[in-house]
Amino acid sequence: MALKSFIEVGPDSHFPIQNLPFGIFKPEPTSPPRPGVAIGDYVLDLSTISVSGLFEGPFLSGSDCFLQPNLNKFLALGRPAWKEARTTLQNLLSADEAKLRDNPNLREKSLVPMSKVEMLLPIAIGDYTDFFSSMHHARNCGIMFRGPENAINPNWFQLPIAYHGRSSSIVVSGTDIIRPRGQGHPSGKSPPYFGPSRKLDFELEMAAVVGPGNELGKPVDVNEAGDHIFGLVLMNDWSARDIQAWEYVPLGPFLGKSFGTTISPWIVTLDALEPFACDAPKQDPQPLPYLAEKISKNYDISLEVQIKPAGQEDSCVVTRSNFNHLYWTVTQQLAHHTINGCNLRPGDLLGTGTISGPEPESYGCLLELTWNGQKSLSLNGTTRKFLEDGDEVVFSGCSKGDGYKVGFGTCSGKILPSP
Amino acid sequence: MALKSFIEVGPDSHFPIQNLPFGIFKPEPTSPPRPGVAIGDYVLDLSTISVSGLFEGPFLSGSDCFLQPNLNKFLALGRPAWKEARTTLQNLLSADEAKLRDNPNLREKSLVPMSKVEMLLPIAIGDYTDFFSSMHHARNCGIMFRGPENAINPNWFQLPIAYHGRSSSIVVSGTDIIRPRGQGHPSGKSPPYFGPSRKLDFELEMAAVVGPGNELGKPVDVNEAGDHIFGLVLMNDWSARDIQAWEYVPLGPFLGKSFGTTISPWIVTLDALEPFACDAPKQDPQPLPYLAEKISKNYDISLEVQIKPAGQEDSCVVTRSNFNHLYWTVTQQLAHHTINGCNLRPGDLLGTGTISGPEPESYGCLLELTWNGQKSLSLNGTTRKFLEDGDEVVFSGCSKGDGYKVGFGTCSGKILPSP
Repeated sequence: MALKSFIEVGPDSHFPIQNLPFGIFKPEPTSPPRPGVAIGDYVLDLSTISVSGLFEGPFLSGSDCFLQPNLNKFLALGRPAWKEARTTLQNLLSADEAKLRDNPNLREKSLVPMSKVEMLLPIAIGDYTDFFSSMHHARNCGIMFRGPENAINPNWFQLPIAYHGRSSSIVVSGTDIIRPRGQGHPSGKSPPYFGPSRKLDFELEMAAVVGPGNELGKPVDVNEAGDHIFGLVLMNDWSARDIQAWEYVPLGPFLGKSFGTTISPWIVTLDALEPFACDAPKQDPQPLPYLAEKISKNYDISLEVQIKPAGQEDSCVVTRSNFNHLYWTVTQQLAHHTINGCNLRPGDLLGTGTISGPEPESYGCLLELTWNGQKSLSLNGTTRKFLEDGDEVVFSGCSKGDGYKVGFGTCSGKILPSP
Repeated sequence: MALKSFIEVGPDSHFPIQNLPFGIFKPEPTSPPRPGVAIGDYVLDLSTISVSGLFEGPFLSGSDCFLQPNLNKFLALGRPAWKEARTTLQNLLSADEAKLRDNPNLREKSLVPMSKVEMLLPIAIGDYTDFFSSMHHARNCGIMFRGPENAINPNWFQLPIAYHGRSSSIVVSGTDIIRPRGQGHPSGKSPPYFGPSRKLDFELEMAAVVGPGNELGKPVDVNEAGDHIFGLVLMNDWSARDIQAWEYVPLGPFLGKSFGTTISPWIVTLDALEPFACDAPKQDPQPLPYLAEKISKNYDISLEVQIKPAGQEDSCVVTRSNFNHLYWTVTQQLAHHTINGCNLRPGDLLGTGTISGPEPESYGCLLELTWNGQKSLSLNGTTRKFLEDGDEVVFSGCSKGDGYKVGFGTCSGKILPSP
């Protein structure tokens, strides 16, 4: 018999009692930010639950981690505290438990309709790293820019390639994205042009949220890396392809990415995703020992991107992919990140890179879907090569269980014109 | 008649009353960190000065910015507050002013011998960006890795190339650096090797410390960029050349850099450096309008790197360079960084990139000085191609005025073996 909440949750909801993702919200525009979990169409206010003394376990009873404006302090506590929170909350919200169910006053204070709250960034992000871990994405980009002969650089199969991203411009779902200006380059010896980006794109990604970090100089073992990851979010790594193409040699992407990165407000924990774990792809060549995992896991998470052009009622699905297309796992990414001694901190974000599948309908960005603008994508009677002003891009992601879903909600942003 | 302090300051000191660089220190191992300025062989405790009510100007009299464990709050106040602090402190420390000079109790409380204090990171660094702005460095690297024909990529002359660096592993001068482990690649089709870096290097850089930031989506005009820069520090961007060479295509440097970056504890303000301003090099081709400055300034700051091998008494100068070798100015770097709408925050760090001059004796890293290990550098009877365990690398930098110096002190770190 499946676990059930006293709060009614429809079968298509992303937020049944099996999920309980964590976020930061304001119940009223003027109230201070606080942690919450999503349950059906409600947000459960963890500051109220905490002040009411309902976290009674050894890790959380004396802690003020749910009286903070972000989740970093909770993340730093590690998996035993996370499991204690999950058990406490699943118990408190279950149909069989009277404590909250039969306390109208506490229900009134702690359960806020999701439609009324404002969601904020769930974490203070010290450093944000973006990997490049879908082989299909790496191959497609390689074919486009270097030709089919050397599509994937030899280092790609030996290590999870990554670059440092910009933390300051990470925003929460729903924040508008202003079309960036910058330099592009037509070709050959012509001078660069300057202006609003002509090739604005989304990138369908997810990101791992780091829990306890590691000390500078002390790498994390790949088989213990899972304990350093709290959960996952959806992430749109907006990209200006013309700016990126002109600037990225030899030091990598910079202004082509740093104008904005959007994440979903809800962090779905690895504990909630555990039923959807699946084998990661076999790696050939075998990774070096520091990257060789005893158990190499992906998660079966269906991902979808819709675009809603300005003035249209309906949005249109432009791609469907899955988290399980990743070649390098998030635990390998984390272990690799620290092998040189680099320290991670609670709240750091590790993006997966664009998650493209093998079929053209599963490519994770317009660059691949339109093959760098060589063909058009049909969109409910209109067409797109790259994003236009007013386009709203909406990601969603969820795993399907037996009679329930564990989902991420959406991660969206609308393009505003350059000033 | 030159400004003079009642505190005796020798002619070779980096810290006369004309300088007054800001840092964060602990007077005793157990005391909380607080802001200070360097004066001769002393640190003036700004928390004491502040609590004593000696900041009487409009910007600082009611502020708690000097009661913080970092300088970020002070930096956020902007140039008018910085100038007020400088004027107040120069007055307070001057030979003619009795307020502090003739108050033994206050002197005792507020002036701490520099030899006794522990210096900490002066700022909480949200994001760290590293530019690539010395043409000599870009050319030398290009010749080594791509041949003399296409030594400098065409984009280099059109924009200040940069990459996002790692904030978490920035440490203050004096912190040991553990030799990173990672993958390297011998050549051709051979598999990569794994182990302690065989090509550990320093990079002689300086970095600009951002004061007031800008809102996401609102670029900073290049002619106003100077008001967003509080001052400069010395910076050693330690680099593992073998790790970097194998990983950096196509997304740029990652683990080859992120194991540690050292900055000097003292931030020398642009106001203190103003007497040493000089013309920046003429740029050809002319930069695009958003990078064209009415006044294009560098600063005449002599830079020197010494290496002290383990067990030796003496260190040996390995290079002498100057900040004025930069092709792109720090104000152009800052304006470029924000042109796409990217937001900067107080305390962000903008590294210049390795500052190499035109002559071989002025190259800013071992990669250039030994031409990627093809020749040896002589070092007091021993030789080096890259850094060895136990080597201590010491940067210093200063500008020479008429009868005084405005200096940065040192920025040092010692290499410890891989675990």
